[in-house]
Amino acid sequence: MNCVLVGAGRLGTCLGLALKACGHEVSQVYSRTEESACALADLLGTEAAFGSPDRIRRDAELYILAVKDDALPALIPQVAAGREDALLVHTSGSMPLNLFAEAGVKRGGVLYPMQTFSKGRDVNFNDLPIFVEAMHEEDEQLLKTLAATLSRQVYVLSSEARRRLHLSAVFACNFANHCYALAARELEKCGLPFDVLLPLIDETAGKVHTLSPHQAQTGPAVRFDEGVMQKHLELLHDEPLAAQIYELMSRSIHAEAGRADTDTEPCNP
Amino acid sequence: MNCVLVGAGRLGTCLGLALKACGHEVSQVYSRTEESACALADLLGTEAAFGSPDRIRRDAELYILAVKDDALPALIPQVAAGREDALLVHTSGSMPLNLFAEAGVKRGGVLYPMQTFSKGRDVNFNDLPIFVEAMHEEDEQLLKTLAATLSRQVYVLSSEARRRLHLSAVFACNFANHCYALAARELEKCGLPFDVLLPLIDETAGKVHTLSPHQAQTGPAVRFDEGVMQKHLELLHDEPLAAQIYELMSRSIHAEAGRADTDTEPCNP
Repeated sequence: MNCVLVGAGRLGTCLGLALKACGHEVSQVYSRTEESACALADLLGTEAAFGSPDRIRRDAELYILAVKDDALPALIPQVAAGREDALLVHTSGSMPLNLFAEAGVKRGGVLYPMQTFSKGRDVNFNDLPIFVEAMHEEDEQLLKTLAATLSRQVYVLSSEARRRLHLSAVFACNFANHCYALAARELEKCGLPFDVLLPLIDETAGKVHTLSPHQAQTGPAVRFDEGVMQKHLELLHDEPLAAQIYELMSRSIHAEAGRADTDTEPCNP
Repeated sequence: MNCVLVGAGRLGTCLGLALKACGHEVSQVYSRTEESACALADLLGTEAAFGSPDRIRRDAELYILAVKDDALPALIPQVAAGREDALLVHTSGSMPLNLFAEAGVKRGGVLYPMQTFSKGRDVNFNDLPIFVEAMHEEDEQLLKTLAATLSRQVYVLSSEARRRLHLSAVFACNFANHCYALAARELEKCGLPFDVLLPLIDETAGKVHTLSPHQAQTGPAVRFDEGVMQKHLELLHDEPLAAQIYELMSRSIHAEAGRADTDTEPCNP
């Protein structure tokens, strides 16, 4: 499939590499800045465009907009202009499909690969769920087929459900990582390297492959051990936000422990 | 080393298996209930004792108390009685060493393997940091030597520092797992299996092997994207605790993003 990649950030880079590895033709990489456009174009062995969106090629079948959420509303009409027959897709977890209809675009879609992308980390698309959606049934089919060349896990999902999926990803990824950051801060205070936490972090992530998070929960908050919790809060006396998080998370863990486990079976036996 | 294991829960079981695998002699397993004492004793091919702590053997060099924190104050004097020359250690992250001195025990110590133990999960002690402490220097040396047979990562750590370490483990493990639980709840509402989150959870844990949590942070809260965050909070209108957690974590992530990264080097390059 002949496509143009609009955006050369972390997601654009990983997606471009995955498309290339699966034999798709990325005929151009566009980015606002010359530096990032050329860096990714070099990596993919393709043409770079930068500066005005007018410089984006007009002959591609598919334009993949891998840009920040808030750049989409302005960018969509610019990319659509003069490319009325092409399919435009964005890659955002939280932006709805109807951005395209609102901009008067005839063929719009979404291709959301759910992952956290950081510089210097290779991402294996093969194991990564991709969620697609399109204005037209034939484009949905086209995106499903394209996504299936990249990953074994492809789902058609509405914008509404995708927003909730994105919320769950914020909990499982962004908030879990912030828990690591708060842990790192405490560890530093006792002069220990962050590495001592890695086996615990890995096992915590590993456990939910075979147990539900409800079943996997351990620690003082499950049994609401006030002695331990009070002493922990004393250690956080100079970290008011972390102390509030500690209290709230502990209450929420205790409330969750009181719920019936809805996962009667391990989720991935 | 001839030792008796007091406690046959998840930690006792994993520790017993690791001791046995490293060639140590666990001469007896004691538990309050016959069922759990016999189950672990069978697993280790050793003697079971249950009911009154009087039934614990008196000829061991080391008694490892792998029981819940709040059971320790009552149990320590019972195990110490009639075993005045033996070394008693507990395995708790949050209980201080001076529990032993307070109970009039002459030789006390701590052996804290930092990990989350769940039924049905094998734990590889070899990669797991163990923190030791003892009332006497020679016992500290003895525990260091013992721990070094189980793991490559052994640290001597004071009770005060261990308490803070335990707090950091609560963040990195218990709270991270609760983030998975909150994610699971949202995912259920859009009819998706929990498994779709596993690649994201694994990559989130994987990233902090090469980036600091500060460097690894992604998501709407880093840039304080109020549009996305407001829509997420609307989805949580029927989950007041989860909504409070969302707000607080987002504020804390944004505050962390404004700090200088103290880890100039990736933590584990």
